[in-house]
Amino acid sequence: MSQPLILVTNDDGFYAPGLRALVEAMKGLGEVVVIAPDKPQSGMGHAITINSTLRVSRMQHYGALAEYSCSGTPVDCVKLAVNKLLPRKPTLCVSGINHGANHSINVIYSGTMSAAIEGAIEGLPSIGFSLLDYAVEADFTAAAHYAQRIARQTLEQGLPEGVCLNVNIPKLHLDEIKGAKVCRQSRGTWVEELDERTDPSGRTYFWLTGYFQNFEPEAQDTDVWALDNGYVSIVPVHFDLTAHSAMARLNDLPPGP
Amino acid sequence: MSQPLILVTNDDGFYAPGLRALVEAMKGLGEVVVIAPDKPQSGMGHAITINSTLRVSRMQHYGALAEYSCSGTPVDCVKLAVNKLLPRKPTLCVSGINHGANHSINVIYSGTMSAAIEGAIEGLPSIGFSLLDYAVEADFTAAAHYAQRIARQTLEQGLPEGVCLNVNIPKLHLDEIKGAKVCRQSRGTWVEELDERTDPSGRTYFWLTGYFQNFEPEAQDTDVWALDNGYVSIVPVHFDLTAHSAMARLNDLPPGP
Repeated sequence: MSQPLILVTNDDGFYAPGLRALVEAMKGLGEVVVIAPDKPQSGMGHAITINSTLRVSRMQHYGALAEYSCSGTPVDCVKLAVNKLLPRKPTLCVSGINHGANHSINVIYSGTMSAAIEGAIEGLPSIGFSLLDYAVEADFTAAAHYAQRIARQTLEQGLPEGVCLNVNIPKLHLDEIKGAKVCRQSRGTWVEELDERTDPSGRTYFWLTGYFQNFEPEAQDTDVWALDNGYVSIVPVHFDLTAHSAMARLNDLPPGP
Repeated sequence: MSQPLILVTNDDGFYAPGLRALVEAMKGLGEVVVIAPDKPQSGMGHAITINSTLRVSRMQHYGALAEYSCSGTPVDCVKLAVNKLLPRKPTLCVSGINHGANHSINVIYSGTMSAAIEGAIEGLPSIGFSLLDYAVEADFTAAAHYAQRIARQTLEQGLPEGVCLNVNIPKLHLDEIKGAKVCRQSRGTWVEELDERTDPSGRTYFWLTGYFQNFEPEAQDTDVWALDNGYVSIVPVHFDLTAHSAMARLNDLPPGP
C-alpha cells in the first residue's frame, strides 16, 4: 500500500520558518509535496488570481518529494497542486504553520485557512495550523508536535464531509499545553484604527491597524477561551455560508414593481 | 428624522456600469456614499491590505453625497468607510451590482460578497447584488429594480443579526422574472482547467479557468435552481464558519506525546 501523499502550503511564503516546521512534522506521516506562495500572502482571504497569469517554479529546499513556489495566492496554490502538479490526489492537505493567530473571526481574513478551506472544497481532508506568535524567530516546537498528532489522527479517522479544521496553538512550551480542545469560533471583531499619515509629497495615506475584541470572554466552548487557558484550539470549519436558521425569517418577493 | 445613509461599494471598480446602476437605484431610498476600489478586484475573496498602505481619492462622478476611490480591496473599502470616512454609521451597506454570477460556492471567492460580509461583521444590514452577465454592456435594468425592492424591504424590516444577503439576478428582462426566492447555497464546485501556455521567452505560465459543476441540479430550494427557473435568488449568509454539527464527531486530544 502506498504512503499517504501530503500537500503542504502556507500564506507566509515559501521560505517562512513555519512552513519548514510543518514540512518536517509531516515527513513522519507520509510523502510530502510543498507548494507555497513566492511572497507573503497574509490577509489574502479566499482570493484567487483570475485577471493575471500564474507562474510556478520548481524548488529544492526541504528535501520533500516535490517542491514548488507559485506567484499566486494560497488558494491558487491548492488549485494548481490538485489540478495540475500532483501525480495523484493527496491524502491530506495542511497549511501553515502560520506566524500569528487565526482564531475567531480571523478565519475569514486568513490565507492559511483559505488554503485549508479550498482543500476541503476539493474534497481533501484539510487542516490549517497557526501559532499565536508573529515573530519570524518564533519557537514552533509545540505547534509542530500538535500538528503531527492532529494530522495523524485525521489520516486515521478522516473528517466529516465538507469540513476542515482550524487549529491554533498558544505561545507556550509543549509541557505547559494542557491538550487540544474541539471548540467553536468565538464571536468578536477587529476594532479598526486607520492610522492616517502624510507622505513626503504631502499626500495622505492609511495603514489598516487595530485590535481584536472578543464579545464572549466567559464562553468556555470557544477557541479564544481555549487558547487563553493553555489549550490548542480545534474548530471544525465549513464552506456552506448559508444561514439556514435565518431562511424562515426572510420573505420571497413576488414579481412586479 | 434623517434619511437613511447608504454605503455603496463593489469589486469591479469605481467606474463599473454595475456600480452606477446600484447608485442610481439607492438614490431613491436615502443619501448615498460611494467608496469603491480604483481597479477591478474580482476574485479577491475576503482579502485585506495589511502589508502595504491604502490611498483614498475624493471623486465626483455619480452625484452622490460623497464619493471615494480606494487603492485597496472591497473589504478595505468597507473598513475605511465605516471607521474613517463616514460622518455616521450607515443604515445599509450594499455591494455590486457585480458583472457576473456569485451563486453557490462563488460566494467564497467573491469580492462583491466579501464587502457585504464585512458590512455584516461591522454590524450593518448588508446586501451583495450580482447579475448573471459578465458583459461590460450588460443590461442592469431588472437587477437595479430588484436591488431597490430588496434594499427597501431590508431598510423597513432589518436583517437577523450576523446575517447578510447574497442576491443574484438572472439575465432576463424584468417582465420575464418570476419574483425573488429565499434559498440556500447550492452544493457545487469549480472544475479547474489550468490553461498552460508558453511565453515569448519559452517559460511556462498558467491561466486559472474552468467551469462550475452543480452537485444538486434537482434541489428546488437552491440558488442555482431559482436562477435557472427565472427567479432572483436571495441567500442569507453568515460569517460564523463553525461546522457546529461536526463538533460532536471530533475528539479532544490530551497533552503528551
